[in-house]
Amino acid sequence: VGDDERLRISELARRTGVPVATIKFYLREGLLPRGDTTSATQALYGELHERRLRLIRDLTEVAGLRLARVRQVVAARDAAGGRAGAQRLLSPDAPPGVAQTDAGDLADAQADADRFVDDDLGWRVRPDSTARAHLARALATLRRVDGSVEAGVFRPHARAADWLASEEVREPPRSLDDEVVVAVAFDAATSALRRMAWEHRTSPARTGVA
Amino acid sequence: VGDDERLRISELARRTGVPVATIKFYLREGLLPRGDTTSATQALYGELHERRLRLIRDLTEVAGLRLARVRQVVAARDAAGGRAGAQRLLSPDAPPGVAQTDAGDLADAQADADRFVDDDLGWRVRPDSTARAHLARALATLRRVDGSVEAGVFRPHARAADWLASEEVREPPRSLDDEVVVAVAFDAATSALRRMAWEHRTSPARTGVA
Repeated sequence: VGDDERLRISELARRTGVPVATIKFYLREGLLPRGDTTSATQALYGELHERRLRLIRDLTEVAGLRLARVRQVVAARDAAGGRAGAQRLLSPDAPPGVAQTDAGDLADAQADADRFVDDDLGWRVRPDSTARAHLARALATLRRVDGSVEAGVFRPHARAADWLASEEVREPPRSLDDEVVVAVAFDAATSALRRMAWEHRTSPARTGVA
Repeated sequence: VGDDERLRISELARRTGVPVATIKFYLREGLLPRGDTTSATQALYGELHERRLRLIRDLTEVAGLRLARVRQVVAARDAAGGRAGAQRLLSPDAPPGVAQTDAGDLADAQADADRFVDDDLGWRVRPDSTARAHLARALATLRRVDGSVEAGVFRPHARAADWLASEEVREPPRSLDDEVVVAVAFDAATSALRRMAWEHRTSPARTGVA
């Protein structure tokens, strides 16, 4: 769609595959900006609307994000500049608080997780990244189940994550919308393959070799 | 807690770090079985309740699962036998339907994704695994963004997933509750590290080396 082209809502629905009723719902919810009103019953839409609709569709269909989360991502996307934003947009909220009894364990785990990321891996990650808190939470949980566990238990995961990022990051950068969608797609694929690999490896009658 | 030990709700709260009010909420919601009623105002709880409470706590705090999802996992856990169940329990629902216009693309992607898993990787994965549908959805999405993409684009992710599973699967098997929690923790860690790796690699002033 060119910058000047103006579409009726039915044409917007046809191009994006999103039903008219759903588009009207997104408009009411403020996920999609209003079009240019041309009469009491008609408005016209443009390229912005088409791209935004595709983004919403991909986030809901691919990532299975709930609407409240899509709203956050879309708002953050509008505020964001630069490509590093894509993963940042997708970062979940900080994990919920823990019971008082576990606060000390969690503080230890956070210190160990941060040292692992900053010193052992040498990664440049914002101090306030929610991913840090999620990593610490995972470490504290493993310690509760398996006893003494070092943050280095995640070294394979870190190496895999870094390697995958090197495969996924593309030059020249995609558009920010596309970066978000690609990140969502690769995340979904990674989760799916992890579940399948685990099923394969714990299958009672394993015969195949990966 | 021994099989015979009987705890008051306040003691259950102390041991698990879950507030009494929250325990009462789980009881009302049916997430936690009722205790043995000893009077009009008192019931006693045992090892089952303590373990179940820890599981619910880990699923909500670590994985950030919503209560509806925790309910599914707990119900499935009660019905499940065998350790391969852990990842299966955690599999999300099948992805939502797609717009009619994309149905053909998705069918192609599903065939390609299945061939990749079954033939190229040689993994033993149930035909009805929802993970297959998620992988196909991710492939179809990448094709929409980047044009012609083969399922082999996920080969690094599959290799990483298989390698991680080999590190995570432990002999002898943990209890089913523990397997579920460990799987959740490693999944959370993987997601967190993937976001950090992406941020590191797209950081404007990258100096560290992974």
